[in-house]
Amino acid sequence: MRMLINVPETVVADALRGIAAAHPELTVDVDNRVVVRRDAPVAGKVGLVSGGGSGHEPLHAGFVGPGMLSAACPGEVFTSPVPDQMVRAAAAVDSGAGVLFVVKNYTGDVLNFEMAAELAEDEGVQIAKVLVNDDVAVTDSLFTAGRRGTGATLFVEKIAGAAAEEGAPLERVEAIGRRVNEASRSFGVALSSVTTPAKGSPTFDLPPGELELGIGIHGEPGRERRPMMTSGEIADFAVDAILEDLRPDNPVLLLVNGMGATPLLELYGFNAEVQRVLSERHVVVARTLVGNYVTSLDMAGCSVTLCQVDEELLRLWDAPVETPALRWGR
Amino acid sequence: MRMLINVPETVVADALRGIAAAHPELTVDVDNRVVVRRDAPVAGKVGLVSGGGSGHEPLHAGFVGPGMLSAACPGEVFTSPVPDQMVRAAAAVDSGAGVLFVVKNYTGDVLNFEMAAELAEDEGVQIAKVLVNDDVAVTDSLFTAGRRGTGATLFVEKIAGAAAEEGAPLERVEAIGRRVNEASRSFGVALSSVTTPAKGSPTFDLPPGELELGIGIHGEPGRERRPMMTSGEIADFAVDAILEDLRPDNPVLLLVNGMGATPLLELYGFNAEVQRVLSERHVVVARTLVGNYVTSLDMAGCSVTLCQVDEELLRLWDAPVETPALRWGR
Repeated sequence: MRMLINVPETVVADALRGIAAAHPELTVDVDNRVVVRRDAPVAGKVGLVSGGGSGHEPLHAGFVGPGMLSAACPGEVFTSPVPDQMVRAAAAVDSGAGVLFVVKNYTGDVLNFEMAAELAEDEGVQIAKVLVNDDVAVTDSLFTAGRRGTGATLFVEKIAGAAAEEGAPLERVEAIGRRVNEASRSFGVALSSVTTPAKGSPTFDLPPGELELGIGIHGEPGRERRPMMTSGEIADFAVDAILEDLRPDNPVLLLVNGMGATPLLELYGFNAEVQRVLSERHVVVARTLVGNYVTSLDMAGCSVTLCQVDEELLRLWDAPVETPALRWGR
Repeated sequence: MRMLINVPETVVADALRGIAAAHPELTVDVDNRVVVRRDAPVAGKVGLVSGGGSGHEPLHAGFVGPGMLSAACPGEVFTSPVPDQMVRAAAAVDSGAGVLFVVKNYTGDVLNFEMAAELAEDEGVQIAKVLVNDDVAVTDSLFTAGRRGTGATLFVEKIAGAAAEEGAPLERVEAIGRRVNEASRSFGVALSSVTTPAKGSPTFDLPPGELELGIGIHGEPGRERRPMMTSGEIADFAVDAILEDLRPDNPVLLLVNGMGATPLLELYGFNAEVQRVLSERHVVVARTLVGNYVTSLDMAGCSVTLCQVDEELLRLWDAPVETPALRWGR
């Protein structure tokens, strides 16, 4: 086990203490596992709350801040947070304008956010929800009925977050979040397995020289295994898998995402190949983001997410954001 | 070999094509391997040029932009760029105010930047140089006479870059760069070896369950090997190794850096331990940066860099920066 940890039991709490120390602009409740932007609640503004299992950092805590999430609830590694975290987060960020829950489509997350919505509404917080289910690799999976939620989460959180920051009402922030999810598709590839601290050995067995096409962000099986492919061949496969499902007429936002252990040098090279394929398929790329954003601990590999945008969604994507992992100005 | 590449021979060129596609705010000369901020030369402004072997991304190309580097010259993986790249970069960014070369202390880099300085001066560009040699782990190493240059490169590039952006003359930008280097110390730890594309197998042999204390960013040997330690024990060892060499009276900037394959969840947990040790040693942390900034391809591990700052250096650190990997506003 090559892990930079104390003991598996304290990994999430240790990380939260480290986030608190590094980011004075966030309020971190280590005991209750809620990360909130320090100026919350912002008067008149819709709150955005997301969360999910830990191990996908910077998702979600790294996306808390002006222009994106109001709060994040980290669960145990690869395990849904509990409703109590979400209710606390909702209460902390609600200004009276209501709260949008951004939920990745995994059975545990869906159930817990559902329960949290009921509890929060009992406490007088108006709740809306957007379910993210962008992964075209497989329908139904180890922890999911339907499609898994992966890279599009970043697009939903950024774009709906920008709408909320502009003062859009809850109904509209929710509608924009849904539009972004519907306009987004992803496909992921693993070059290695992932090792969770609790298990301490690889979640699945992937011999060197093979890759898994369509991997999930918890190591859930994809479509097939193949002998190692080149970066160009992987780009062809991933982009075509997406385009079989959604053929964009409009320009797209492109996320070339690392799973955690693939060097940025390789991710940029992969981006060149993804852009080549998109150009060959006559898809116009409006904006590109390359890096480790929706990760799977120490997994080597990558994913591609496309989000088809109109002028409004593009403007909201470009709007200022100020979070630990994603930040740009006017 | 679990690499997301086409063939080892094109890894750097592929990455440069990918950087060009992702970052329209940069001018990328793929053939000559120079990455320049698009608005260079900026009238009256001192240019900052750095470079080094590829494989440490985002260093250096990811630090090109307003408030930091004017240009970067990527060499082959773990191999110095050649003087021709540096001369081209200097010519591209010189407004007449001169150019500062930021050079990590590796023999090849030092010689090539030295030669480039002579060639650029022959062409009428005034050149100054700052040598970065912050790594306290060992004196003399596989590719270095004296100390290796590692994490402090980020601090030198950011702070000297801010001074240049404010319009400071070459002599002063150079003096600030030297001050930052002299005020900085680093210590790195490997939990796994690194595999270069050309070799395709681990550079050194590090059995699971052991770590290398004092590792270099090319896998150069450190001080010693030990059986696996906890995150807290590693923090104690790394911070004390630094403080034996430099005992800060002033507050410090803290970089908790990942070597590439260590999950952000673990890096944040490690940050909590580093902050605990610093607090126990009565060192005040003014600013903290956690992430993968000065990497070693797919190496698992981390490094700690401290930079002691006065009010002026802290102000320059806080100044706006707008690069692919480091960006914040006013």
